[in-house]
Amino acid sequence: MDNEELEQDKAKDEALEKALEQETENETPSEDETFAKPDYESEIIKIIRSTTSPKVTREKLEDYHANDIADVLEKLTVVERKKLYNILNMDMLSDVFECIDDVSPYLEEMDIRKAVEIISSLEADTAVAALRGLDKVRRSVIIDLMDQESKKDIMLIASFDDDEIGSRMTTNCIVIRENLTVKEAMRSLVKQAAENDNISKIYVADESNTFCGAIDLKDLIIAREGTRLDDMIVTSYPYVYGHESISECIEILKDYSEDSIPVLDNNNKILGVITAQNIIEVVDEEMGEDYARLAGLMAEEDLKEPLLDSMKKRLPWLVVLMFLGMVVSSVVGIFESVVSQLTILMMFQSVILGMSGNAGTQSLAVTVRVLMDENLEVKQKIGLVAKEVRVGFGDGLLLGILSFIVLGIFIMIVKGRPAGFAFAVSGCIGLALMCSMVISSLTGTLVPMFFNKIGIDPAVASGPLITTINDLIAVIVYYGLSWLFLLEMMHF
Amino acid sequence: MDNEELEQDKAKDEALEKALEQETENETPSEDETFAKPDYESEIIKIIRSTTSPKVTREKLEDYHANDIADVLEKLTVVERKKLYNILNMDMLSDVFECIDDVSPYLEEMDIRKAVEIISSLEADTAVAALRGLDKVRRSVIIDLMDQESKKDIMLIASFDDDEIGSRMTTNCIVIRENLTVKEAMRSLVKQAAENDNISKIYVADESNTFCGAIDLKDLIIAREGTRLDDMIVTSYPYVYGHESISECIEILKDYSEDSIPVLDNNNKILGVITAQNIIEVVDEEMGEDYARLAGLMAEEDLKEPLLDSMKKRLPWLVVLMFLGMVVSSVVGIFESVVSQLTILMMFQSVILGMSGNAGTQSLAVTVRVLMDENLEVKQKIGLVAKEVRVGFGDGLLLGILSFIVLGIFIMIVKGRPAGFAFAVSGCIGLALMCSMVISSLTGTLVPMFFNKIGIDPAVASGPLITTINDLIAVIVYYGLSWLFLLEMMHF
Repeated sequence: MDNEELEQDKAKDEALEKALEQETENETPSEDETFAKPDYESEIIKIIRSTTSPKVTREKLEDYHANDIADVLEKLTVVERKKLYNILNMDMLSDVFECIDDVSPYLEEMDIRKAVEIISSLEADTAVAALRGLDKVRRSVIIDLMDQESKKDIMLIASFDDDEIGSRMTTNCIVIRENLTVKEAMRSLVKQAAENDNISKIYVADESNTFCGAIDLKDLIIAREGTRLDDMIVTSYPYVYGHESISECIEILKDYSEDSIPVLDNNNKILGVITAQNIIEVVDEEMGEDYARLAGLMAEEDLKEPLLDSMKKRLPWLVVLMFLGMVVSSVVGIFESVVSQLTILMMFQSVILGMSGNAGTQSLAVTVRVLMDENLEVKQKIGLVAKEVRVGFGDGLLLGILSFIVLGIFIMIVKGRPAGFAFAVSGCIGLALMCSMVISSLTGTLVPMFFNKIGIDPAVASGPLITTINDLIAVIVYYGLSWLFLLEMMHF
Repeated sequence: MDNEELEQDKAKDEALEKALEQETENETPSEDETFAKPDYESEIIKIIRSTTSPKVTREKLEDYHANDIADVLEKLTVVERKKLYNILNMDMLSDVFECIDDVSPYLEEMDIRKAVEIISSLEADTAVAALRGLDKVRRSVIIDLMDQESKKDIMLIASFDDDEIGSRMTTNCIVIRENLTVKEAMRSLVKQAAENDNISKIYVADESNTFCGAIDLKDLIIAREGTRLDDMIVTSYPYVYGHESISECIEILKDYSEDSIPVLDNNNKILGVITAQNIIEVVDEEMGEDYARLAGLMAEEDLKEPLLDSMKKRLPWLVVLMFLGMVVSSVVGIFESVVSQLTILMMFQSVILGMSGNAGTQSLAVTVRVLMDENLEVKQKIGLVAKEVRVGFGDGLLLGILSFIVLGIFIMIVKGRPAGFAFAVSGCIGLALMCSMVISSLTGTLVPMFFNKIGIDPAVASGPLITTINDLIAVIVYYGLSWLFLLEMMHF
């Protein structure tokens, strides 16, 4: 290597080091750089509306991704959709239906034999959801017309509770017997591959279908014919039981970062697999539900939901919160005599209540996420509580001092009160702010931990609930301190 | 089929229909049913602490999943970890390191040549994160010692911004040339499979490496040798450009439900792929950030974070909210004369403010999720606003009537006021409650939409911010209505 090359290498190294330094901002690409992609949607609609023969239309449509075809369905008329159902072959049609969130309305409008065919070729978990969305009569007719094989898979998935991981699995996986040679295994794989999509992991089971381990398809492909299958089987491959609760095992499933993880029954027989796609769906839903709960909703809502359903999802928390709010009001009522002597106190009630609620909501959000991600030991739990209280104290101290100064000046200048009185009041406000923020951080941590302990989803301790509980505490702290300092000790 | 079989089939159908009916509650399994799994953690620790020869120890450890070994790392002493680094082969060791969230501390403590070896064998995106976590000097030395090939991949990933999808891709994928026969394609696959993990989709590119389409490995495996490769290529396979922003394309990536999606540069050349695992990570992070923002945090926090970092993440919002709170206080101050004439009004301020904040937070959460999931047209946006206002009105009306009755009785009995006065006040409270809930639902929808419009993440309109804005509105509505009705019109 001559000097010039060495120089070049060094320059490259420096460029890499620089790129790694800039964690957030690299050479920003021009902001208005748009990534123009073909407008698949209108292309597909155009093809469907054309008058070419079914065969030509089908061939053209096969060039598009099932998800793109699924996206245009709702833009078509019923007649156009019915035409599409007849043009596409069943493979493509079931792929399209896999990409739709709620297939029931489409199943309602099509020929019943077509609906039966589609449901039979859908993944069992999608089929269960589809059947549940249909009205009772149509569902009963469709089940009647289905063949026994499809019914078996659907029955299996439907036998699990909505909150059990088994209800989210797919039965679509490759299982081979142990004691095969590489060649036999490959042959068994090719035979099953036509029917099953999830081939990147091959599961190994004994004669009684008990789970033994998994083989990476990659290893099987690059293996020499002489290699023993035994050496390739990962016997420590992760697995779940179908009856395990989704919220308990989803973190583990995520952590293993596998393309699919087998689901076993209580006798360790393979029922199906949870694929990475299933995990994406579940993670999305679980987080969405927590997100909704943090805002005081009973469940996630979407755009299409009827008005009454949305009202019902929000009302329960609102009613609970209103009655809690009335309790807060009664407590404020107890301090009526304090306020009537010092009406200026009332002005700042909203700041204290607001800030204590905010600090509590922050602690709540951190606690819910930590409880969700990790299985904590007692020591770690105490550590979390201690940390939250310290964060609450630190931020509370800073904000307390800030409001002591700002509000003192405000009362002096705007309200025209003497400096001694102004800073006595703002000092009391600052102190109350700090105390209530510390206590709020504590309740924001302890309440979700308590819910978690008694087996209730800690996200139920939603932001508004914590806020209202902390309102109560803040009112007592604020008016209590004011009474003690300003009236009893300083006799204003 | 004889009668008995028919009977049996019918019974089965009925069982299936029943299972489908019970959407939420099937035969619940006994709650205390625990799913005992082997305690991998202590088994692994025991093996590492044993004094068997390195070869035997390695063979024993190879029976465990990399993720399980990764979980015990933090429980080991530095000496035990160093022993483990030497015992495991590089394949296994890099798998273990892939499963760890923050690998930097471990890289700091090990021999520098080992660290170089590990970083070179990690996925490029993990390697970038690992290098960024190291201190500058050690990072520089490691880069110096790495071979050019690994440096190239790392440089590629590091060249993307943190919020660009390219920064999350893996370069680990199979690309074959077009115009191959099935046999040649299979040979090319086997050659690349040893080095690359993501084999279930095979990408096809022309001589200039321009993306042409994808082949399902499954189709390639079950294809007869005579089949033309052209017929198997899905030319409509989805793709993304490396510079696209993560938050904009993640929903699309999720919808396609593919195991991997290629990432192209601006000249349509394949740079790498986004795998389902990458998507899981990104979805998790994006949701976690929104969740944190909804609670008024700058970013997600975890257990190990230093106290000062947590304080810093929470303080900015708290300061903003405190000053907004002081604005609310000043507005309350304007109404001091109203309150001094009717001190009972002050008691119920917290209920009105609390409920208007709650309604606003609910609308906010729904709006943020809807904006995240879908690209809305103007018509749909107006629909969302109209729906939120109607939900706010419906729930507000119910709660307004409820508080009119409950608080009227409360003021009559507990506070001993005449019925006329009590119900005039509670009517005013009920009306203010309803009005402020409607307006809050409106702001809770419009504010995040406005943020979205000007290109700011709508989740920034966090719950506490909306709550404080709505405090302001509620105060004006409440005291304004009270002044108008109770003082001006009814002269109490």
